[in-house]
Amino acid sequence: MSSFVLHERLARGSTDLGRYAHCRVLLKNHGPFPWILLVPEWPEARELHDLPAELYAQVSDAVRRFSQWMSTWPGVEKVNVGAIGNQVSQLHLHVVGRHSQDPAWPGVVWSHGEKTPYSEVELAEHVARIKEWLASA
Amino acid sequence: MSSFVLHERLARGSTDLGRYAHCRVLLKNHGPFPWILLVPEWPEARELHDLPAELYAQVSDAVRRFSQWMSTWPGVEKVNVGAIGNQVSQLHLHVVGRHSQDPAWPGVVWSHGEKTPYSEVELAEHVARIKEWLASA
Repeated sequence: MSSFVLHERLARGSTDLGRYAHCRVLLKNHGPFPWILLVPEWPEARELHDLPAELYAQVSDAVRRFSQWMSTWPGVEKVNVGAIGNQVSQLHLHVVGRHSQDPAWPGVVWSHGEKTPYSEVELAEHVARIKEWLASA
Repeated sequence: MSSFVLHERLARGSTDLGRYAHCRVLLKNHGPFPWILLVPEWPEARELHDLPAELYAQVSDAVRRFSQWMSTWPGVEKVNVGAIGNQVSQLHLHVVGRHSQDPAWPGVVWSHGEKTPYSEVELAEHVARIKEWLASA
């Protein structure tokens, strides 16, 4: 079996912040939403069901923990979770913090065209928050 | 704790086909995509992490099984999974079959405006397929 290599489009559009439950943890490089990607380090996986059952259970538990944690972030009223993969086939899970005043609400972020880079302050806050959480997890 | 009641918007827009892993199994009433909703029968749940850990694990496993199964449906090349809930707050998970010639591809179905009712034949096929699978599961 080939080894896992992060897809270059995922790598290019995000900041790699570490690992959790056999997933690469990425922060998307743009707002306006707090937007984390979990990429299971399993070569060739495209669908959730491509993961072996035990790894799938670990990844699912990671989604639960990230969802719960993100719901405590400032301004987050709702968490959206998705595994889509129509454009980048490597399996990746989205965990996105939403609030009822955000520019895509109540629509989904995946069809929201206007990406805005995080400000340096926002980016630093997000990165610090995630790294601290990963270090304590 | 109050008892579980299916949200009237979910009930109105779908056909209730039974239960699986403590979830109501619904077929959305329109195409053009095969589109199943899993609604965990847990009162007041809005987020995935509102489910108790054991139920969450069962629901996650159900998602895996539905995803795997739906990938074998005629014409399905990719499965999209999501837990959004920005419009209907009752927790529900989408499992949607996609293919690269469908009218929303490569976008997501949630922002695709044109809903088309299933033909009677399509609806009967979907209902029969799901009921048969649930009966054998």
